Amino acid sequence: MIKLVLLRHGESQWNLENRFTGWHDIDLTDNGRLEASNAGKTMKEAGLTFDIAYTSVLKRAIRTLWNALDGMDLMWIPVMKSWRLNERHYGALQGLNKSETSRKYGEEQVLVWRRSYDTPPPQLDRDDERYPGLDRRYADLGETELPLSECLKDTVERFLPIWHDTIAPEIRKGRRVLIVAHGNSLRALVKYLDNISEEDIVGLNIPTGIPLVYELDDDLKPLKSYYLGDQEAIKQAVQAVAGQAKA
Amino acid sequence: MIKLVLLRHGESQWNLENRFTGWHDIDLTDNGRLEASNAGKTMKEAGLTFDIAYTSVLKRAIRTLWNALDGMDLMWIPVMKSWRLNERHYGALQGLNKSETSRKYGEEQVLVWRRSYDTPPPQLDRDDERYPGLDRRYADLGETELPLSECLKDTVERFLPIWHDTIAPEIRKGRRVLIVAHGNSLRALVKYLDNISEEDIVGLNIPTGIPLVYELDDDLKPLKSYYLGDQEAIKQAVQAVAGQAKA
Repeated sequence: MIKLVLLRHGESQWNLENRFTGWHDIDLTDNGRLEASNAGKTMKEAGLTFDIAYTSVLKRAIRTLWNALDGMDLMWIPVMKSWRLNERHYGALQGLNKSETSRKYGEEQVLVWRRSYDTPPPQLDRDDERYPGLDRRYADLGETELPLSECLKDTVERFLPIWHDTIAPEIRKGRRVLIVAHGNSLRALVKYLDNISEEDIVGLNIPTGIPLVYELDDDLKPLKSYYLGDQEAIKQAVQAVAGQAKA
Repeated sequence: MIKLVLLRHGESQWNLENRFTGWHDIDLTDNGRLEASNAGKTMKEAGLTFDIAYTSVLKRAIRTLWNALDGMDLMWIPVMKSWRLNERHYGALQGLNKSETSRKYGEEQVLVWRRSYDTPPPQLDRDDERYPGLDRRYADLGETELPLSECLKDTVERFLPIWHDTIAPEIRKGRRVLIVAHGNSLRALVKYLDNISEEDIVGLNIPTGIPLVYELDDDLKPLKSYYLGDQEAIKQAVQAVAGQAKA
């Protein structure tokens, strides 16, 4: 039985402030750190263990992974960090408050930017201080790889190469894999794994800090998937994510 | 100008209890965590930055690295963990108190085990619960690589392959490297870099949590080396390490 576990980072300061974060490197809140530690304990208590972990180059995901590994006494396992696991780039919306943006552009427009499959938010200019080409952690990326804004389709397209080239081969070798990433990079993977349509992915929400277990067959097709923990609390957490852009 | 920085992990619980630690995976004390965070701040204030970091598979080194990276806002850089950077394996002495061991075997014998180049401490049996072959983090090592006890010569011999095969090539590519490891694995590297004799390495002590900067020429030969921070405090820290096995 192959088990793959996905974990969205705990609450960040900008989750709390209800701002579009994207590639902005904001840290976890104290609550987010606790969520991460608790996720580690939950996984350990469920008898899960891992041989390798993947995360983004953003500290809210890295710290979530660190706290979870600490809680599982697995600080020693290899960790690979890649920009391909980053949150969707929110373009010129990065830093803006979600409710204010809804009041300004209308809830419907913001819902399109947040949840439509192929409509990206307004683009950044390359001389904007938020342009990733100015950040040395992305120095190895070519200009075509450096996003000015991303829709979920774009995120799927830059996420899947690391799945096919790196993560899936490790799983096939028998390695037990933990992926700690972001709401939209995980939606990108879930869309692929569960073969969800472009229409249906709009309604799919992944709560922070709750391990999502996939049981896979030998072709890495999902047999089933479930969240670990208190099922009623998880349901509420999923609904809370859906409600964030109300004006 | 090539700069390579070495950092010994902060105080661990067994440093505090004055016990031989070796490959036992004991954690940092609160003071050790603070030392690590301060080391990060000291490096940042000195204008140092890094492209990649290397550490052992032992949590006192990994947590020291994590705290230092956090203090430098470099959580995103690649980190490679290897057993080759582990502390010297202390064999059957692991877990024993250093002063008690000195009273039992004599200060001279313990100084030989602690500091001689080629006399290993008494070996573990393979059915001892401390045998590394029973720990899954060493599952990829062959029986000849799994130590029953190590003298510094053994540590040098298993450390240098990762230096020559992995770390030195990264430095030659222009990567700025941070190595967070242990008293004896760092002595192994310092012996090699500074070409220290087997006699003189006995008297060399590396204090916890203080960044040791090497400036290297293009052949990776040291031009100079120095500790970062308050020089008087560093001198006292070096002397404190030397005094640990007094009975």
